[in-house]
Parts: sequence; C-alpha cells; structure tokens
Amino acid sequence: MPTDYVHQLDNGLVLLGEPSDAFQSAAFSLLISAGCRHDPAGQAGLASLSCEMMLRGAGDRDSRHLISDLENLGVERSESVGVSQANFSGATISASLIPALSIYADIVRRPHLPEDQLEAGRAVCIQELRGVEDDPGQKLMMELRRRHYPDPWGRPSHGEQDDLAKLTAADVQQFFTNRYGPRDAILGIAGNFDWQEVCNAADELFGDWKVQADYSPITEMAPSKDTHLTYDSNQSHIGLAFPSIPYRHPQYFEAWSAVGVLSGGMSSRLFSEVREKRGLCYTVYASLHTQRERAAVFCYAGTTAERAQETLDVTHSELVRLGEGVQAEELARLKARIKSSLIMQQESTSARAGSLSRDWYHLGRIRPIEEVAAKVDALTAESINAYLAANPPETFTCLTLGPQPLELPNGIS
Amino acid sequence: MPTDYVHQLDNGLVLLGEPSDAFQSAAFSLLISAGCRHDPAGQAGLASLSCEMMLRGAGDRDSRHLISDLENLGVERSESVGVSQANFSGATISASLIPALSIYADIVRRPHLPEDQLEAGRAVCIQELRGVEDDPGQKLMMELRRRHYPDPWGRPSHGEQDDLAKLTAADVQQFFTNRYGPRDAILGIAGNFDWQEVCNAADELFGDWKVQADYSPITEMAPSKDTHLTYDSNQSHIGLAFPSIPYRHPQYFEAWSAVGVLSGGMSSRLFSEVREKRGLCYTVYASLHTQRERAAVFCYAGTTAERAQETLDVTHSELVRLGEGVQAEELARLKARIKSSLIMQQESTSARAGSLSRDWYHLGRIRPIEEVAAKVDALTAESINAYLAANPPETFTCLTLGPQPLELPNGIS
Repeated sequence: MPTDYVHQLDNGLVLLGEPSDAFQSAAFSLLISAGCRHDPAGQAGLASLSCEMMLRGAGDRDSRHLISDLENLGVERSESVGVSQANFSGATISASLIPALSIYADIVRRPHLPEDQLEAGRAVCIQELRGVEDDPGQKLMMELRRRHYPDPWGRPSHGEQDDLAKLTAADVQQFFTNRYGPRDAILGIAGNFDWQEVCNAADELFGDWKVQADYSPITEMAPSKDTHLTYDSNQSHIGLAFPSIPYRHPQYFEAWSAVGVLSGGMSSRLFSEVREKRGLCYTVYASLHTQRERAAVFCYAGTTAERAQETLDVTHSELVRLGEGVQAEELARLKARIKSSLIMQQESTSARAGSLSRDWYHLGRIRPIEEVAAKVDALTAESINAYLAANPPETFTCLTLGPQPLELPNGIS
Repeated sequence: MPTDYVHQLDNGLVLLGEPSDAFQSAAFSLLISAGCRHDPAGQAGLASLSCEMMLRGAGDRDSRHLISDLENLGVERSESVGVSQANFSGATISASLIPALSIYADIVRRPHLPEDQLEAGRAVCIQELRGVEDDPGQKLMMELRRRHYPDPWGRPSHGEQDDLAKLTAADVQQFFTNRYGPRDAILGIAGNFDWQEVCNAADELFGDWKVQADYSPITEMAPSKDTHLTYDSNQSHIGLAFPSIPYRHPQYFEAWSAVGVLSGGMSSRLFSEVREKRGLCYTVYASLHTQRERAAVFCYAGTTAERAQETLDVTHSELVRLGEGVQAEELARLKARIKSSLIMQQESTSARAGSLSRDWYHLGRIRPIEEVAAKVDALTAESINAYLAANPPETFTCLTLGPQPLELPNGIS
C-alpha cells in the first residue's frame, strides 16, 4: 500500500491516498508551508491573517459565492495555522470530493485577498487573540510552549495585537507570494475515491502551480522568562514541560508510550494520583507534542488556588518518577487502549487524511496503520525503560498562572 | 430495520441495535434516568457526585481493577450527567463489546460507592464546578439556560458548591437506590456485533435487575433574574435565548432548519453578518437545544467590551429577522450540508449509538437515518416560513457577562 498511493508532481506537491470502499465520504488535508514561524519581525499574526483572508473570494468566485459553493458541496471544512504549516482540511460525500478540491485549488493559488475585507479579517484575528486572554488554561499552555521551545518553534499562531493592528493588504499579499506554493505542499486524501481520477485531478489543478521562492526568513523573538503570570481568579493553572524526541526518531514509540502510562486512560498515573486519589483537579494531562525536528511533553493541571502547591508538587514528582520506568501491566493496558483507538481512527476519513499528510511531513513517507500496530505490539517494558533510563524527564520548564506564585520544585528555576 | 433491532426486557430496559459489517468497532450508550433534575433541595450536585462515584469499584472489582479491566478491553469511555439522564458511553473493538457491557452492568447495578473515596470524588466535582467560573463563555451559557427554562429544566449538572460540601455517602447511596434501575433505561448499540448475541447478553446481565421505585421528587429552585453578570475582563459575553419546539414535535425539522440558516455554515447569517462582514467576534453561534417536552434556541457571541453593544444589537436583529423567513438558496445550501453530515455521522459507531438511545427517549422508537434524510429532502422554504410566521423568534431571554451591562434591545427586559 504505501508506495502505490503516492503521486509527486514535478513542482513538488505530493498527493497521498488511502482509498477504501468502506466509506461513502472522503476527506482531505492540504498542508502548505505557511505557518507562523514565517511571520516577519513586527508582523506576528501575519500567517493567521493571511489564512483568514484566503477564503474571502478566489478564482472566479467572490467571497459569498466561494462559501456558498463549498456549502452546496456539503464540505465540512476547517483551517488552522501551526508553527510550520497552514492546514486546509475538509470532508464531504465521495461525489463532491473533486469539485471541492477544484475550489481549494483556487483558494490556495488564486485568492482575491480583498482589501475591502481586510479590516473585518483583522478584527476576527484580534477577537480570537483576545478570546485566549479570557481562557486562562489555554493562555498558560500557549505561554509555556513559547518559553519551552527556542523561538520561532513555540510561537502561538495568533500573533500579537500591536502587530496585527499594523498589518496591511500588501503584507498579506507578500506573505501569500512568499509562502503559498507547491514546494513542501502535501495533499492527503482518505475515504471513498478513485485514485487514478484524483491523480488526474491533481495534475490538472496543481500541475502548473509555479514553485514559490525558497524564502523563509525566521526572526527570533526572545520570550519572557517569568515563571508566573498573575491572574485574578480563585483558580490556579500549572504547566510543566520537558524535552522529548520527535515522531521521526527511532525510539519515538518508546517515548510516546511512556507518556501514555503517565496520562491518557483513567488508570494512567496522573489521572489516578492527582485526580482520583487526591481529588486535586478536574483536568490533568500530559501529552507528547512533536514537531519534525524537536518534541516536548507538555503537562497541565488546573486546580483551586489553595490546592495549587500540592498539585504542582504531586504532578512534578509523578513526572520525575516516570524516569524510574514503567510496569509490564501498565504497558499491557496501554497497548489495549492504543489497539482499540487505532481501529477507531481507521474508521474516520478525516483522521486518516490528516495522518497521511502529517506522516509525509515528518517521515517523507506514509506509515500504514499496520506498521503503527506492529510497532506498538513490539514495545516491551524493557525497551521503554531503556529509553527512560537514558532520557529521564528533567530540564523542566514550569509556568503557573493564578493569584499567586508557587514554590517551584527542586531543580526548576 | 426499525422494529427488528428493538428488544425490551420485562423490567423496562430497552435494548436498541444498529449492526453493520462496515465497522470493526462497536459503541454503546446507556441512558439511566438519573439526571440532575432529581437533585433534592439543598443537594444540588448529587447526581454528578453519584455518577463520579459509580466507577470507583463495582461487583467483584475494586476501583483499580475496574478501571484496569476496562482499559485492558480498550474501551474509550465517557460519562456525563444531563438534566434528565446519566449517560454511560463507550466504544471498543467488536470482540470486546460484550465483556465491556458486563462490566457496565456491574457499574450501574452493583457499584461499591466506597465511603473512603467520597472526599476525592467530592473534590473532583468541586474542582469541575470552580473550573466553570474560570470559563466565562461556558458560565454565561450555563446561567442563560438556567434563567430561560423553568426549574429544574435549566439546571447545570455541576450543582452548587455549598451543597456539594454537605453531601454524604448515605446521600449518594440513597440517590443510587432511587434512580438507578431499569425503568426508563435505554441501551443503544451500533457497529459490528451480532444482534442475537447482544440480546442474550442483555437478558443475562440486566434481566433480573429490579425495577426502581418511581421516586422523582422535583424541587424547584428559583433562579436569579439578573440580566448582567459583572466580570473583570476586557471581553464581553452575550447570550440570547428564545423558545422553540422539541424533537418529537411534527414541525421540528422546520424549526431546526431555520436555526441552520441562522448558524452552522460559513454562509449562515450569524457567521456572515456578525463575524465575516463586521469582524465583531471570533465565535458566534445559535443552536436548537431540545429536551423531550421543551426546547429553545440558545445563541452566543463573545467579543471585546468596546464592541459588545454593537454585537448584541446586530445579533438580536438577525434573530428577529429570521421571523421574516428564509430564502430558497439558503435552504439548498443547508440541505447539502445536512446530507453530507448525515453520511459522515453514519460512519461513526459512537454517533450512531448515541442517536439510537436519544431517539428512543424522545420518540419511543428508532428514527432511521433514511427517515431523517427523507424529512430533510421534504423541507421547503414555504414549510419553514409557515412555521416561522406562526412562531417568530420572540420572548427573548438575554444575559450578558463582562465589565459592564449593555442596553437591552427593545422588547427584552
């Protein structure tokens, strides 16, 4: 399967497929190398504003017709901007797939970027940014990521309000010209479709797309190093991060499953120790966040101010204790959970389309779900513990948000 | 299909199925008539605390083994408490379905409700409640619902902190005895399974479950009638509600599609007028919330304080304008969206299991997805407009949350 359904155009765009008759729907995920790490200095938020403007008319359609036509095709769509890429994804019934792709070819190649809608687009971006200010948990984790990774890798895509306020239509046009093109573009499609038809459509829609310049200025912006953000509330939010290894690393599954023992199921250590036994919080989790060249585990706990210190201490000691290794029965439970979730993931065209595109970005190939299952099967407590012994959770970044600072555990500053 | 896969036990419990070979997974949704409208006076939060305690050991398994065994079966589970019911749902691979159901039979019939875990369970409930206080958008919509519906129908399931603090293990035991039983219990199952096997399993697991007393004290608690909640932030949150008709009403699809024209897609009126054209907010939506005997449309907009008045005015006038009717092309786009989403819903065992149980609760029968599709096909602008002419959006409940009160539109007080 892997090599059969890969079609790379001369201009660089890669088309990936996972056709299946088990569905009536089809989903796609189009990654364009237009993430916020390419926001120039003083223009933080440009990638987001550009993405927001892309759907406001393209090709022969004005804003209204573009949206109407996508809706007439029954497309459930979403757009997001990450550090490296903008992601345009959608799902619809099988018969509407190619017509939908043809509209998306207009969107990413021939957007109008209408000047008279710039103020509305900017206002939406600023509203989104300010909405985060009202969501302290999200705000904390955003700031933790910014402090943990070297810039630009931890940037939030929302940008900065002062920068957003100054962006012009010419800036958006320039960003579009620099970043939107077939170089590094990846289009993953899963569900009910004919592979040959989709290849022909991709040739026609994207074959003559001109390669963009290899223009990628990356401007470092040094983040604040504060370990506490004061916030007037009776809740405290706690974030801890430590370095890990990315998806492409040979030991990735060891690192990932160690985090699975820490967090994920109800018997996971954090859930059990922090929530179930002590009732310290309603939400506590850790997750392995992976970029192509770097990765980290981000851990969150939200609690009342009076129990915040205990929550931080217990959470931190569970992270440290992970370095001592996992038990065979913890791994057995984890494997059962993963096996089940892989099967359910296979039953979602959107999940599969997203995986295809991500796999290609991270690995330069498709990783079939059977390979993932085999890698999970092959995990042993020994292999995980060997990884943990060599890479115990340490070098933590800690950030808290709430009415008052907490005492940081030993070894964190 | 509808009548073939319905199996009612003598004690009242109804088993509903939608078997399909297209899946490798199976999902279930078990509704028990144990929602928060049964919280006695001064015990707001009892249904939630009881639900929280249910998984802390049952049958032969203590808390730890119960959770381990569910995870070993690969069950992705969730529990929630609504106004009328507690919902225990899960999904797993086909082969694990019946073993998982047998654990759930222990959970709802033979929970340990261990006294030594009461404090931890209570702490989790209080943490959840206080978490809402830090999420102003959620807080607003919770309070709007409470003000719009007559008590107990708008109650938040989280309860009240003072009440939660006083609940005892005996209260939980009493609630369990009163409310957990086969009367009004509904178990919907969708995905890959053998109907006859599941019927036999249900007979064995639930056949001798004793009918609970028909004990349902409903205590009215009068909510505050304030129209503004002061909150120190630069954001304002706006909520508007108006009465609608429930799922079981013959004109439900007319009411529902009118709300679909208002909100849902990018070309919907609220998204277009409030977000796209004016950039007033990042999030704006309206949705038809239906209980069995009553329903309402709840509308939310979150914005900056300085644009809050304009947002309220524009949103309110869009709601009022809906009373003038919808256009044929708006309906055409909506139908395409619905058609596509019905197909995608059919590809999720969890979504289908949830629908089966809800259909039975609302209608006393299964409504096959083909019937929904036919009802949507039959909608015309005329039928929707006849409904809207007779039932224009009016009698609004308005609630705002932010730094200062807004001027309410004419006709709202």
